[in-house]
Amino acid sequence: MAKKPPYYAVIFTSVQTEQNAGYKEMSQLMEELAKQQVGYLGLDHARSALGITISYWETLEDIARWKQQTDHLAAQRMGQKQWYKHYEVQIAKVERVYSFDALKKE
Amino acid sequence: MAKKPPYYAVIFTSVQTEQNAGYKEMSQLMEELAKQQVGYLGLDHARSALGITISYWETLEDIARWKQQTDHLAAQRMGQKQWYKHYEVQIAKVERVYSFDALKKE
Repeated sequence: MAKKPPYYAVIFTSVQTEQNAGYKEMSQLMEELAKQQVGYLGLDHARSALGITISYWETLEDIARWKQQTDHLAAQRMGQKQWYKHYEVQIAKVERVYSFDALKKE
Repeated sequence: MAKKPPYYAVIFTSVQTEQNAGYKEMSQLMEELAKQQVGYLGLDHARSALGITISYWETLEDIARWKQQTDHLAAQRMGQKQWYKHYEVQIAKVERVYSFDALKKE
């Protein structure tokens, strides 16, 4: 992923309910939709007891626009009604990045 | 977790190798150790194909100090030598937080 700071991260942490009907389809749809938005830079996701999804964006305006996008609003409503016990959204400005790659060692 | 922005997040995303001997013990040890550091605010973790660990800190100085902490340096070396194929560290300033709790609905 070619992201060069500064850029923005939306850190979405969630605890799911037992009602997950339609959840997987909706998250795939939202990922596809996010990719089409202006300013979208990428996404990281993992789930154990806690789910963490981080989406990356060029500006705060891009994030605000994505939050208000019609289909995404519908997904948020479904999430609150059915899929999530709890979630937290943290908006953060990424200031520095470094990485390690075993293949490039030495 | 009582975190009030602005604060800082260290977003650690990783892909593991197949050699995970000692990894679990070391991550528990590092979590215990992180908790004892000045400025530590909390930690979120999830792992699927990708592992995501986010630690939260009061200031950038707290993060720099934790990065250089002796036992943590040893863990980083073990990580590069054995446990990780790839990892990325993103340092971000959390500017805004909001949450949803199903129990508090309506």
